[in-house]
Amino acid sequence: MIKTAVLGATGYAGIELVRLLTNHSEAGIEILGSHSFAGQKISDVYQNFNHILEKECEELDLQKAAKCDVAFTALPHGASKTVIPSLLDAGLKVIDLSGDYRYDDVKVYEEWYGEKHSSPELLKESVYGLPELHRDKIKKARLIGNPGCYTTCSILGAAPLLANKVAETKNIIIDAKSGVTGAGRGLKLQNSFCECTENTKAYNIAKHRHTSEIEQELSNIAGENIMLSFTPHLIPQKRGILATIYVNLNCPSSTEELTEMYKEYYKDEFFVRVKEAGNLPETKHVAGSNFVDIGICYDQRLQRAVVVSTLDNIVKGAAGQAVQNMNLLFGLDEKTGLSNPGFYL
Amino acid sequence: MIKTAVLGATGYAGIELVRLLTNHSEAGIEILGSHSFAGQKISDVYQNFNHILEKECEELDLQKAAKCDVAFTALPHGASKTVIPSLLDAGLKVIDLSGDYRYDDVKVYEEWYGEKHSSPELLKESVYGLPELHRDKIKKARLIGNPGCYTTCSILGAAPLLANKVAETKNIIIDAKSGVTGAGRGLKLQNSFCECTENTKAYNIAKHRHTSEIEQELSNIAGENIMLSFTPHLIPQKRGILATIYVNLNCPSSTEELTEMYKEYYKDEFFVRVKEAGNLPETKHVAGSNFVDIGICYDQRLQRAVVVSTLDNIVKGAAGQAVQNMNLLFGLDEKTGLSNPGFYL
Amino acid sequence: MIKTAVLGATGYAGIELVRLLTNHSEAGIEILGSHSFAGQKISDVYQNFNHILEKECEELDLQKAAKCDVAFTALPHGASKTVIPSLLDAGLKVIDLSGDYRYDDVKVYEEWYGEKHSSPELLKESVYGLPELHRDKIKKARLIGNPGCYTTCSILGAAPLLANKVAETKNIIIDAKSGVTGAGRGLKLQNSFCECTENTKAYNIAKHRHTSEIEQELSNIAGENIMLSFTPHLIPQKRGILATIYVNLNCPSSTEELTEMYKEYYKDEFFVRVKEAGNLPETKHVAGSNFVDIGICYDQRLQRAVVVSTLDNIVKGAAGQAVQNMNLLFGLDEKTGLSNPGFYL
Amino acid sequence: MIKTAVLGATGYAGIELVRLLTNHSEAGIEILGSHSFAGQKISDVYQNFNHILEKECEELDLQKAAKCDVAFTALPHGASKTVIPSLLDAGLKVIDLSGDYRYDDVKVYEEWYGEKHSSPELLKESVYGLPELHRDKIKKARLIGNPGCYTTCSILGAAPLLANKVAETKNIIIDAKSGVTGAGRGLKLQNSFCECTENTKAYNIAKHRHTSEIEQELSNIAGENIMLSFTPHLIPQKRGILATIYVNLNCPSSTEELTEMYKEYYKDEFFVRVKEAGNLPETKHVAGSNFVDIGICYDQRLQRAVVVSTLDNIVKGAAGQAVQNMNLLFGLDEKTGLSNPGFYL
Repeated sequence: MIKTAVLGATGYAGIELVRLLTNHSEAGIEILGSHSFAGQKISDVYQNFNHILEKECEELDLQKAAKCDVAFTALPHGASKTVIPSLLDAGLKVIDLSGDYRYDDVKVYEEWYGEKHSSPELLKESVYGLPELHRDKIKKARLIGNPGCYTTCSILGAAPLLANKVAETKNIIIDAKSGVTGAGRGLKLQNSFCECTENTKAYNIAKHRHTSEIEQELSNIAGENIMLSFTPHLIPQKRGILATIYVNLNCPSSTEELTEMYKEYYKDEFFVRVKEAGNLPETKHVAGSNFVDIGICYDQRLQRAVVVSTLDNIVKGAAGQAVQNMNLLFGLDEKTGLSNPGFYL
Repeated sequence: MIKTAVLGATGYAGIELVRLLTNHSEAGIEILGSHSFAGQKISDVYQNFNHILEKECEELDLQKAAKCDVAFTALPHGASKTVIPSLLDAGLKVIDLSGDYRYDDVKVYEEWYGEKHSSPELLKESVYGLPELHRDKIKKARLIGNPGCYTTCSILGAAPLLANKVAETKNIIIDAKSGVTGAGRGLKLQNSFCECTENTKAYNIAKHRHTSEIEQELSNIAGENIMLSFTPHLIPQKRGILATIYVNLNCPSSTEELTEMYKEYYKDEFFVRVKEAGNLPETKHVAGSNFVDIGICYDQRLQRAVVVSTLDNIVKGAAGQAVQNMNLLFGLDEKTGLSNPGFYL
Repeated sequence: MIKTAVLGATGYAGIELVRLLTNHSEAGIEILGSHSFAGQKISDVYQNFNHILEKECEELDLQKAAKCDVAFTALPHGASKTVIPSLLDAGLKVIDLSGDYRYDDVKVYEEWYGEKHSSPELLKESVYGLPELHRDKIKKARLIGNPGCYTTCSILGAAPLLANKVAETKNIIIDAKSGVTGAGRGLKLQNSFCECTENTKAYNIAKHRHTSEIEQELSNIAGENIMLSFTPHLIPQKRGILATIYVNLNCPSSTEELTEMYKEYYKDEFFVRVKEAGNLPETKHVAGSNFVDIGICYDQRLQRAVVVSTLDNIVKGAAGQAVQNMNLLFGLDEKTGLSNPGFYL
Repeated sequence: MIKTAVLGATGYAGIELVRLLTNHSEAGIEILGSHSFAGQKISDVYQNFNHILEKECEELDLQKAAKCDVAFTALPHGASKTVIPSLLDAGLKVIDLSGDYRYDDVKVYEEWYGEKHSSPELLKESVYGLPELHRDKIKKARLIGNPGCYTTCSILGAAPLLANKVAETKNIIIDAKSGVTGAGRGLKLQNSFCECTENTKAYNIAKHRHTSEIEQELSNIAGENIMLSFTPHLIPQKRGILATIYVNLNCPSSTEELTEMYKEYYKDEFFVRVKEAGNLPETKHVAGSNFVDIGICYDQRLQRAVVVSTLDNIVKGAAGQAVQNMNLLFGLDEKTGLSNPGFYL
């Protein structure tokens, strides 16, 4: 059994990790790290865990952590940086859910996060934890920067067009809609029920940090520097991101042809489901699962592809992807603990 | 008092018209037309009207209708065409909420609706009922094609950029999100609570009929033929459309400059509220009201404007705009019966 | 025009008062009192008010308040007590939305609120502001204790059975379900979207303060001391309370007979709508309006009445009732500004 | 591996069975019976099953069914009766999710369902499938009447008080709130999103069929004939039932004492979680799981217990309980395939 530590276990990404790990046949939770709830049973904080996992939350104790094989760090932005070097020194592998270790170029990080990076040498070592693109590197990594939710959805939605060189790299537009779990569990008026329900809004237009992750990965695939529009929206549901991606093509095509291209590109990927031509994905098809569903339309009038990509932001967009990465790190079948269908209801 | 007939009173657009008209100081409802509920009191079909309006629904009787001043036709697609010529002959003014009388060019209608138009001569006479663009013509009209919900939101969101000639007319993309009332009251599995809640999806990509209305009006403003991407989405709320509009600019600008341009363009429009620079609209700010709220961002990296436009799809996107048109037709203050704030809660 | 001051204007009850007063033909808002948002325009805090009411919020200034005719105090529990005596001294009438002035007997207040009452002499003078029961006293009052939301719904639902002496006064059980606006706008994790949506729970069983208000009023009607079970629940919607009331009867009856009894009891009440036998109320029929809808069933097997009563907790359960009381205080038609149907959608 | 047939696989209870069985280590699905979708892949009807289960739905073929070990019949009311005898003849065990085989006394069935029972001899043989009460009989059964959702929640909530003889058997009142999946997937206007969201209502007061099941089981426990009030409500969420149960006690008690009584009564039950005194259950704690959570309050003023019981109506209230029964029938650990925590989010 893989011994895991979940640090930041009582946030929404953290508790989803706990939920997935309690259902994982090859891994067990040794440490439930939570600053806010240290000393309380996880089953008192999240009462769905009664009779399932009644372990106590605790402050991070590095000596104790040293007995684990891997740590998931689902900490508030900035907190990861101070903890992760110590965990690595203690011999653990680390899967970090923050943005700190997702960049090839420290300058990009510092520009979009507006601060100095505290361990740029680790940033060089870390691997971007998107298995569908970087599986081989992930297997050998010590530190994984687990991608953001918007990012995974957007990159996987656009990648085949760029890899196949049919996309014009200017004028790529990604319009993304996210459920409210994406905003985390912190107290904010704007996330209260009466403010959120029956409401949709855009936010952080032209400046959301995930833009830089998406540009990094798509540029790598395209082999040229891509800049694009990314617009996040908040919609009144808990789980789910749906990204609508507009890409001008450099030659005429058809919905069928593009669908085939996607099917071919993802033919070995269990967690990517390409919809048949004429069929579109919906967030409810993926909620609660580690799948990404992608549907493609060709707009003949405009020689433009419109791709719809969807995933569960706290599973494939956070906790599920982290487990997928753990499976790779430890030589397990990538699907272990993740092969359930979505909830649908 | 203006005597009105509401035909199709028991659909969602129809009943919203009834709600607004019961609060209108200068108009009264003479006829509640409903094929499905003829013989039943409106207050039995929509019990929120008990003690307010207990009138019976009835089948259309042209002789009786002839005593009215104006008819609102909120009928299923296709049904308007057969009724409206008779109403006009009977001397009524007609405000039609279907798509039948919204086009300058019958060919565009026939291409997007896939059928012959039954009264092309009336189409020539009819006026596109968007007061912010066509107020003077509306005042003198006999037949008004009341714009669609997506359409109003999109056109008013993009118009100032085109009118001011700062937009590149290629690569305009409109990504729109709509509440479920937009799908009407007809029975469909996909509109049931358990299928809709916690779900977001795109539909009719590259082929939604409202695309043609948006293109017609924006082309008129720009003075050139515009083709654009319009993508509708369904989101889990009742009321509200939010359109995110991407427009490349032909020169550098700033959020402040664009905001000023919008404020100037709409300076005499009560129902259009331009947000201050840095502030974005939300559907809850407009729900239940006749307002359109618009916020503008400039993306300096891409020389692109990202405009967010929002309205209540069954008020400014249907019933409220119809009342606004009626006010214009009868020489009333345009705001009569429409000057309430949104519900917010 | 009646000059009004709304103190606590930016809470949910307060802002609903503002919404209703902007639609009131005989009253105007002179003062928008808000400690948290003093100096900000109300239309910046609640952006649905743009173009409608762009007045600034302010700290309470008694000299300025003295120019008003009436103050609505929608302040946090406890805050009303210190302000209200000063307002009365300044010559205003006061309609208080807190629990401080709703009791006949100061001991009941002190027992249920767990603290000394700061102005018991005013409690003697104050009138319980439920027009359907105390209209004549309200007209002559200086200080009105505006009833709670659960309370209004429960009392009006049970009153006819007690007034007509058909109820057994033991074993009355009131099971009430409330939307989340009832919890106010204060920041609490339990009221966040992700915690509230898809969730129902009971709370404060056997100890909710509104129990004492309900018992006071029903005891007065029955002419004997009544103790009952009152259980509040939180349900995932914004507006609406639905109370299911179980009352054993002292003689056999029928749904029709009980319905007639209710219709007779409320025959002069515009804001109480008794459903026909076999028909039950729903929160969506009353949301956004000042109506209380009541349906009655007789359970023959158990000789028990099951009454379902529903209202909008922030209208008839707070702001709407406060306006109704203001209308009575100033000799206006009780329906002024309140005669709209519910939103339904 | 146990070979199962799921008949009525595309309704909401059926598809939840499919979801649970795909996660069951000891059972496999041989037959997906669906009249409406015969010939279509289940993963086209419920696209969350893509890459997981891509089997075709089919009409019932008894010869093929004969190769299975057990059939789950999740058919519309009435349909079970004709199919089940044939399945039994073919040698299968049957777990029926309809109301047809839940009664000790055929007269009770015929009174509440208003029709003749077609196989009263099987009714004699069938076992009421509530493991917490009838585990031993279930293990040896051939035909199991799987209890209703409201029923399971209500019976388990009230049982300890009756078994311990502290309850007065008159005046028991059960006020239950259910999510909309309980209404099934059939098309009804009242179940559409725009009609359900932001709405709560009671229905079938004093005549819901589940009343008779609850009375049967509680009478058996009490050893006397019990009649009670049961009131179902529809609340705007997908999953979850919460029943609030009012029981007068025949002697003074306390919340702590009652809580101990419940803990003792359910001490060997994995799927029943009794909350600590002062703590109450919420539907989100059980959604997606097979747990029943129960909290108890004592109202000292009224010598009355108020018990809150909650479960997921399509898991412990339908599909999960059916799997639990299957586990018992085939000698497996009762928790097999059911030991996951709820979703919470």
